[in-house]
Amino acid sequence: MKTRAAVAFEAKKPLEIVEVDLEGPKMGEVLVEIMATGICHTDAYTLDGLDSEGLFPSILGHEGAGIVREVGPGVTSVKPGDHVIPLYTPECRQCKSCLSGKTNLCTAIRATQGKGLMPDGTSRFSYKGQPIFHYMGCSTFSNFTVLPEIAVAKIREDAPFNTSCYIGCGVTTGVGAVVKTAKVEPGANVVVFGLGGIGLNVIQGAKMVGADKIVGVDINDSKEEWGRRFGMTHFVNPKKVEGDIVQHLVALTEGGADYTFDCTGNTVVMRQALEACHRGWGVSVVIGVAEAGKEISTRPFQLVTGRVWKGSAFGGARGRTDVPKIVDWYMNGKIQIDPMITHTLSLDEINKGFDLMHAGESIRSVVVY
Amino acid sequence: MKTRAAVAFEAKKPLEIVEVDLEGPKMGEVLVEIMATGICHTDAYTLDGLDSEGLFPSILGHEGAGIVREVGPGVTSVKPGDHVIPLYTPECRQCKSCLSGKTNLCTAIRATQGKGLMPDGTSRFSYKGQPIFHYMGCSTFSNFTVLPEIAVAKIREDAPFNTSCYIGCGVTTGVGAVVKTAKVEPGANVVVFGLGGIGLNVIQGAKMVGADKIVGVDINDSKEEWGRRFGMTHFVNPKKVEGDIVQHLVALTEGGADYTFDCTGNTVVMRQALEACHRGWGVSVVIGVAEAGKEISTRPFQLVTGRVWKGSAFGGARGRTDVPKIVDWYMNGKIQIDPMITHTLSLDEINKGFDLMHAGESIRSVVVY
Repeated sequence: MKTRAAVAFEAKKPLEIVEVDLEGPKMGEVLVEIMATGICHTDAYTLDGLDSEGLFPSILGHEGAGIVREVGPGVTSVKPGDHVIPLYTPECRQCKSCLSGKTNLCTAIRATQGKGLMPDGTSRFSYKGQPIFHYMGCSTFSNFTVLPEIAVAKIREDAPFNTSCYIGCGVTTGVGAVVKTAKVEPGANVVVFGLGGIGLNVIQGAKMVGADKIVGVDINDSKEEWGRRFGMTHFVNPKKVEGDIVQHLVALTEGGADYTFDCTGNTVVMRQALEACHRGWGVSVVIGVAEAGKEISTRPFQLVTGRVWKGSAFGGARGRTDVPKIVDWYMNGKIQIDPMITHTLSLDEINKGFDLMHAGESIRSVVVY
Repeated sequence: MKTRAAVAFEAKKPLEIVEVDLEGPKMGEVLVEIMATGICHTDAYTLDGLDSEGLFPSILGHEGAGIVREVGPGVTSVKPGDHVIPLYTPECRQCKSCLSGKTNLCTAIRATQGKGLMPDGTSRFSYKGQPIFHYMGCSTFSNFTVLPEIAVAKIREDAPFNTSCYIGCGVTTGVGAVVKTAKVEPGANVVVFGLGGIGLNVIQGAKMVGADKIVGVDINDSKEEWGRRFGMTHFVNPKKVEGDIVQHLVALTEGGADYTFDCTGNTVVMRQALEACHRGWGVSVVIGVAEAGKEISTRPFQLVTGRVWKGSAFGGARGRTDVPKIVDWYMNGKIQIDPMITHTLSLDEINKGFDLMHAGESIRSVVVY
């Protein structure tokens, strides 16, 4: 079949909207009509050529929502008409990781996904006879895409596509880091570094679970209003703090935070996030993706005296199991998404979405097909 | 009263065995006759002048066992005749840390303990009219010592002093790191870096809780026999591994260890310990104390892909609550101590104990009064 798609023919160039060829779903695969997709920093990271493992030509996009239109042989968990969110972190429920019960990082199709291919080692996309790589196993910048069955989460049909697509990455990453990775408990004091989309979702996750102080840290004062809208109780701009930011935060949280979250990707900030934790039990969660080659450091004394350093990918959420629950939380009003969707674009306007993100003018731009 | 004690008059000099003056217990304090004390690396660290906060003259020693001989006003939890283990990590059960239920790092008397003083800000020890500092709140290199009530664990009376004293530090630090800090579960794969006394206790802790593979790592082949005696199933000498030690350990544990423990204090090893953990859930526990100024580093990707970096002090054990249980485990044969006590000395021979430790010829030397 033919489908319209935004193709990244090479790094550092705008996407081109063209008609590409798409093969139908093979064994264990599904064809999904993408109804809406968010534009995420990770897409930009790859398009900007910063990901050394980025492949071109490819169809980017990994934060979508859509409708199953066709299923390949052997598919049993979804059927045509089902509403789904594509999962860049699949959930096979059979690999060592899935069966461990300790991680969401399913390894079933990791090798081929990393190569931009479907599990059988081939691509479904082509343009003028040349294969085009899949991206993060999703490629939601295409009106139609093919996904492994284990890489779609079936969601309720009353969830709007143009907002619930954000659950495919940003919402789950932030809310999940609080609920699944850190398991923040009611009454906890939380510090969130970086108030972009992920940070705001961490904030609303912390609010949802009943955190007490929810401190937002950002060097941009304009983020304060955004943070407060989702439950932030205190705002700190490190540029305006006299003296050490860590000591300031420790004092503000009466001894240190119970949980801190780095949503900046800056390794210096990651250290501050760890050291702003309470002695004895504070847990710091790294969410942000650091530049290639950058390392985090601290004195081991920070750990020996009880602080814990961990990380979170896709919010620690199991895609098929937890994503539908997060959609429920959204539909039940436990978390908000609508105010975060600052721009809605057509596919033809997708490059504008990248421009808005680079300019820091959007929380989330969503392309609606 | 008078008591014989080994006094550290200054750094880098042998201890001197003299009679010192000891004031009786004040409000909330107890007088303990120390019956036996281990000699720990931390004592040597201070005596060797490596601890920038070390105070002199002082009476070192923090790994003892003895009998309560007198109690001060207000003491209710122990009485003369009770057998006790002094606690350098006290347990007041009333401070924010104790009440958190999340840490053993009681803060009730931290400030004065760090200054070598009793909670009222004075010392009970003096020599020729000059005060002598307490050490880690214990000073077990004295036949009699005074301790806060919250800094003694009451233990069963049938436990021999000359072995159970080791529970006052080394045993609890190693076994506790497994049981309390890491909470290793049956069937887990464990890697232990450094097979000194702490490492051996980590090994026997892992064996006690039913770990599967228990891999010991040491650059000294003579440690292999020691490790196997306490439950080690595999031994790795990094000097004899071709290629990367981390990759070797990941292969040996079929994807990485569920839990790793650094018992070396070497920050390079601490990084290896983290990175030898299994993707998705491996937990690395720092036990060793690093040189001043040294830092640990890694790529944040290690955390984002599910590895957890934490630390353990006194094995995460609450002194008054957990130490008596560990004494029970010893008395019930769940853990061994006797083979680890390689040398038994008199107080007059205490400097020999330090020499043996520095020469790597002892697992544990114990002074019996």
